[in-house]
Amino acid sequence: MSTSAQPRLRMSPEARREQLIELGVGLLATRTLEGLSIEVLAEEAGVSRGLLYHYFGSKQEFHLAVVRRAARELFEVTAPDGGGSAAEQLLGSLERYVDYVASNFAGYVSLVRGASGGHDELREIYEQARSALTERLFDPAGSGPAAAVSLGLRDTPRTRLVVRGWSAFVEEVVVEWCRDPRDVTRADLLEALGDSLPGLLAGERH
Amino acid sequence: MSTSAQPRLRMSPEARREQLIELGVGLLATRTLEGLSIEVLAEEAGVSRGLLYHYFGSKQEFHLAVVRRAARELFEVTAPDGGGSAAEQLLGSLERYVDYVASNFAGYVSLVRGASGGHDELREIYEQARSALTERLFDPAGSGPAAAVSLGLRDTPRTRLVVRGWSAFVEEVVVEWCRDPRDVTRADLLEALGDSLPGLLAGERH
Repeated sequence: MSTSAQPRLRMSPEARREQLIELGVGLLATRTLEGLSIEVLAEEAGVSRGLLYHYFGSKQEFHLAVVRRAARELFEVTAPDGGGSAAEQLLGSLERYVDYVASNFAGYVSLVRGASGGHDELREIYEQARSALTERLFDPAGSGPAAAVSLGLRDTPRTRLVVRGWSAFVEEVVVEWCRDPRDVTRADLLEALGDSLPGLLAGERH
Repeated sequence: MSTSAQPRLRMSPEARREQLIELGVGLLATRTLEGLSIEVLAEEAGVSRGLLYHYFGSKQEFHLAVVRRAARELFEVTAPDGGGSAAEQLLGSLERYVDYVASNFAGYVSLVRGASGGHDELREIYEQARSALTERLFDPAGSGPAAAVSLGLRDTPRTRLVVRGWSAFVEEVVVEWCRDPRDVTRADLLEALGDSLPGLLAGERH
């Protein structure tokens, strides 16, 4: 076996581990986290279970590595692209979020549920990811020119609470829409999402 | 034993079961669902575990009975009281929802998590309860005079999706506030909640 594994030998252990994590993230698109076993990864990667345990230690650690990477991907894919008004940038981010959830539905929903369902380390990764996504809104440098000002965001505990609620709104609406997109067009969904934060913040200005 | 149990003998089995469910709901105020065992109920009710298994069959069935009752209580306690404008009635319902979550925090959070965390029967009760709570908004007779019209609600799939998202918004904001109410006053919380649905629906009118 080992003599036929030349490509593996040329790759550093770190790079090989990265590659396996990426493969895991890809598998999560159509699988729940519970369905993503070391056995499935071994088969897809064409390596032995033993090697995977060598890289990850346990299924649990493997899952956490995959979820951390997926959270980073989501953060990167929804980053403001730097063009247009703050509202346009926000809409672009929301659009890429919708596409991400639609393309990774099974895994995404299982993550949300796992994080809610009492798995502490999953919850921590999930909470950090959600904080990072909304934190951008309060960081003008991070979300385009004067995003905070033009979206009407004052950085107060009350506004932060509303924005946290808004992220739950977006997640619920997008997951439900992806589950059954028949009755609402994608354009209508995006319009509703784009209007939601300004609508919620209108009450925060007075 | 049985000769000293006169009060129990005078009560019908149905009434006794109801009483035990009510006791369970009360215990859930300060306990998670996982912490609400048949043993705990037996001790609080002063009856044998065997009798509780007779009434409920299993811990699982006991939990479901308690959760169904808690959901009904929440539905009743947040019912519009029939006075004032639709916006005032909505605010009253939201206020009672806040008080309910604050008074039943441990159990409420464990229910939300249990429902998210892959427990199918719990999820069904939770989903039904949430649907019932928002369904009221589309039923003018159920939420005061012309609530739907004066809140600007048109009954479309898109509006229903937004209202579903709004219920996730409210839950997230209220649970987070109850977890740490230090930085936002109750009045500010209620104002933000009261503004949230009209704010989200403003975008649905055009």
